Amino acid sequence: MYNLLKGKRGIIFGALDNKSIAWKVAERAHEEGAIFTLSNTMAAIRFGQIDELGEKCGAEVIAADATSVKDIEHVFERSIEVLGGKIDFVLHSIGMSLNVRKKRLYNDLDYNFLNKTLDISAISFHKVLQVAHKKDALNKWGSVIALSYIAAQRTLYGYNDMADAKSLLESIARSFGYIYGRESKIRINTISQSPTPTTAGSGVKGIDGLMDYSERMSPLGNATADECADYCIVMFSDLTKKVTMQNLFHDGGFSSMGMSLRAMDMYNKSLENDEINEIE
Amino acid sequence: MYNLLKGKRGIIFGALDNKSIAWKVAERAHEEGAIFTLSNTMAAIRFGQIDELGEKCGAEVIAADATSVKDIEHVFERSIEVLGGKIDFVLHSIGMSLNVRKKRLYNDLDYNFLNKTLDISAISFHKVLQVAHKKDALNKWGSVIALSYIAAQRTLYGYNDMADAKSLLESIARSFGYIYGRESKIRINTISQSPTPTTAGSGVKGIDGLMDYSERMSPLGNATADECADYCIVMFSDLTKKVTMQNLFHDGGFSSMGMSLRAMDMYNKSLENDEINEIE
Amino acid sequence: MYNLLKGKRGIIFGALDNKSIAWKVAERAHEEGAIFTLSNTMAAIRFGQIDELGEKCGAEVIAADATSVKDIEHVFERSIEVLGGKIDFVLHSIGMSLNVRKKRLYNDLDYNFLNKTLDISAISFHKVLQVAHKKDALNKWGSVIALSYIAAQRTLYGYNDMADAKSLLESIARSFGYIYGRESKIRINTISQSPTPTTAGSGVKGIDGLMDYSERMSPLGNATADECADYCIVMFSDLTKKVTMQNLFHDGGFSSMGMSLRAMDMYNKSLENDEINEIE
Amino acid sequence: MYNLLKGKRGIIFGALDNKSIAWKVAERAHEEGAIFTLSNTMAAIRFGQIDELGEKCGAEVIAADATSVKDIEHVFERSIEVLGGKIDFVLHSIGMSLNVRKKRLYNDLDYNFLNKTLDISAISFHKVLQVAHKKDALNKWGSVIALSYIAAQRTLYGYNDMADAKSLLESIARSFGYIYGRESKIRINTISQSPTPTTAGSGVKGIDGLMDYSERMSPLGNATADECADYCIVMFSDLTKKVTMQNLFHDGGFSSMGMSLRAMDMYNKSLENDEINEIE
Repeated sequence: MYNLLKGKRGIIFGALDNKSIAWKVAERAHEEGAIFTLSNTMAAIRFGQIDELGEKCGAEVIAADATSVKDIEHVFERSIEVLGGKIDFVLHSIGMSLNVRKKRLYNDLDYNFLNKTLDISAISFHKVLQVAHKKDALNKWGSVIALSYIAAQRTLYGYNDMADAKSLLESIARSFGYIYGRESKIRINTISQSPTPTTAGSGVKGIDGLMDYSERMSPLGNATADECADYCIVMFSDLTKKVTMQNLFHDGGFSSMGMSLRAMDMYNKSLENDEINEIE
Repeated sequence: MYNLLKGKRGIIFGALDNKSIAWKVAERAHEEGAIFTLSNTMAAIRFGQIDELGEKCGAEVIAADATSVKDIEHVFERSIEVLGGKIDFVLHSIGMSLNVRKKRLYNDLDYNFLNKTLDISAISFHKVLQVAHKKDALNKWGSVIALSYIAAQRTLYGYNDMADAKSLLESIARSFGYIYGRESKIRINTISQSPTPTTAGSGVKGIDGLMDYSERMSPLGNATADECADYCIVMFSDLTKKVTMQNLFHDGGFSSMGMSLRAMDMYNKSLENDEINEIE
Repeated sequence: MYNLLKGKRGIIFGALDNKSIAWKVAERAHEEGAIFTLSNTMAAIRFGQIDELGEKCGAEVIAADATSVKDIEHVFERSIEVLGGKIDFVLHSIGMSLNVRKKRLYNDLDYNFLNKTLDISAISFHKVLQVAHKKDALNKWGSVIALSYIAAQRTLYGYNDMADAKSLLESIARSFGYIYGRESKIRINTISQSPTPTTAGSGVKGIDGLMDYSERMSPLGNATADECADYCIVMFSDLTKKVTMQNLFHDGGFSSMGMSLRAMDMYNKSLENDEINEIE
Repeated sequence: MYNLLKGKRGIIFGALDNKSIAWKVAERAHEEGAIFTLSNTMAAIRFGQIDELGEKCGAEVIAADATSVKDIEHVFERSIEVLGGKIDFVLHSIGMSLNVRKKRLYNDLDYNFLNKTLDISAISFHKVLQVAHKKDALNKWGSVIALSYIAAQRTLYGYNDMADAKSLLESIARSFGYIYGRESKIRINTISQSPTPTTAGSGVKGIDGLMDYSERMSPLGNATADECADYCIVMFSDLTKKVTMQNLFHDGGFSSMGMSLRAMDMYNKSLENDEINEIE
């Protein structure tokens, strides 16, 4: 719509289906004139509809396990080859916890699962950056974004070891942002997004209540996947060149709220019902 | 109980009655071996029971308007005189908003009231520090605390211009903490306390619901005035000499919570009731 | 260049001359298709070159004292009239400290000057918002930005009471952001900009050393006024609709740095020279 | 000196020699009336002087690899046995990076080393807490502290993957603090300490310059290991019962500083020398 990414080349990790934030980012990047490749695991490619997205955007889909340095190397090599030059932007939208899936509580973590959570959801980001850096695969003033969540700062019951993974992810963005910034003017940020009804997140217990609460707490309401895609576009564009090592809240104001009237009204209804029950 | 403040001299601003945090701090400071004076406005002295506290603790009560530099000068002069030496600790527990009292909403502030809110609740802290500094009234390694609230970081509906006053207060603690630290090793901190059922706060609309929510969100529950007094004692003691320019959350964990199970359960009850009503 | 603000109407407060950030924002907003008015004090209009900017951008210049509710009312009324409709974006780039100008140290503040600092640099922002809100002068999904500085979070010697003013400013952005967000989907943010060599800031003592330090600490170097203007544009555009109540660091990474190699190298040279001197 | 820990039982992980913070904490805990055990790896026990400390404090030394759940289980079982009851306080002062030791830069990390860094420096804390929780080994209102560093929030060149480990550590403190708080009123905090000249840290490249800079930036100077021990004592005492899930800066004010006059003076000397050299 604005040609904000005209002439830019990118890699987008983590699109699964049309509910994915990464999917929306791909669609918007395409509209804004970028060319890019898409990457996800072999399983996700089979399970999801990423090929359809690839066709729509003229983007090659490259299977890769983001915990494998070798696979990531292939993604960069192949991307540079098919896109015809070095990369300008990268989206990392990858996260998974076996502890959550297998319903292991945070005080009963399986440590092999924890290692996997950290490897998939956070260390993979370091691997992407280290591979890019070693291969000198990013253009000067390039932009890298990883998606995060406020659980990195504040504990939400049920979010489990993903909270720790997001903290680690955000730290990696800062640590590598320093090095990649001073050397190649690459900026690295995380976007801390509202809870978003994706296929990956839909299984989380109690997600509906939390999303209602989040919606009512946020003055502007929860940010949607489409809106997140818009925000990613501006962070990839040339208009945000000096923003780096930041965790950017894209959440309708949730992170700066202590209590809203709308959420409190809903909460108070229960209090009143409780009191009525006690009287009865 | 521990003689943590043995031999120390202090000034405690803002005790009104036995619900006041400042009142509890005075009682605990007395127990821990400190001697001190008490100060509040003439009106508060008449309206409250501060004379009773003074007798109990052997503390002189000094009337002062904390927005008046002259009055504050008198408090320090008189305190040094009756306590027999320079001051080791100061508590600032002062806050008031006419906009809140007169039910002016935040989008309909009276700017004269706002100036008063800031002067009473925040600038008074600068005046206390500047007077102390000019008079060289504090001993090396002295400790100064002002009481704050999380509204300084996150918006809570109804807290109004007091949120802005607390932000200003916390900034003054940092700004003056730098100067007073480098010159005289004085430390200056704010304690961000759970909502506390004091006489001053009892009139705030919707305070009951908010306190219930805060209680259920905080893993340890809301911190009481007594517990806050304990925390002030350790911050006045010689065991915390290198903590300065900090805003210290004393809130049972509230500030680090995104959502607790207990609060969510209460919230969800309303959601369910709402849905039932819609079905009916 | 991208038509990001096509069809949008704005008000830009605080342009003085072509070094001003507000000046650059006006130029960029013009390029991006916006129409707007410019406002500054009568004195600034005479002293600066704002009329030249107005001609260049086809923008009417409206004299106003931003501490006067009446003057601000006039700015909004006149802007809506000449622009032909409600306002979509507002920039607040206003700050001044008489304590700094008159070389009053932070431990020797003149409290009348402090009141003026807060009124001009922070409360004026509340007045702008309150006037806009009462007049229903902003379009739904409008965007308001005020310029801030990291002194709001961390003490920098010499920044004096402007640090406190910026803390207050950022708090007002949050407090009003909640109300304006829930009611009209207006977003309100502050941008925390690198130290920038403007005419207003050029008199600050020790600014050169600080800017060198800031430059070497920031992986991407200090952000320029031009780059800040770009960032304001994206924050005014429709691509950042769900970002609100945030303080957005636009500083080349400075805020997330503890120590960079480049700054440490410079620092260490002095250390070594000192040691040599001691040996000699 | 104050009997603050009279009757309390503790476990202190990580004392090596008399420069260790954990060593100082043990000495102070002993003075304050606590009984406790000491734990470190077999190698550290041989290499260091922990047996000497054990004798001095009447504390049994228990060898354990803190990455081994089994070893940690043994530490708790044995501690409860020799101390005669459940545990009231735990100190976690454990950290190590093979990437730092082997001089692997952050953009050339060995991922096996990274896994070890995270396991030893952060996940070990989760293991300690999970074991304690499963064994119901902590008394109600117990207190757990882990030592951290500001690198968790802000990047310092050379601190490498330890920055990421500290971020993870602080996240674990919050995540487990929620669960352990709501269930057993246990509080869990991290103390973010000034750079401290310990044997473990002495090998870090450029540590002298950094410590000088940190000293001059901090209004109160760097916090010493002795002072950190005092702070740990108050955090273990009954006077801080409602402080949880916090990262507590114990750093002489460093974390709240943007630039001090003392550090800037030193920095500027180099600038001037540089300019002189350029002129010459």
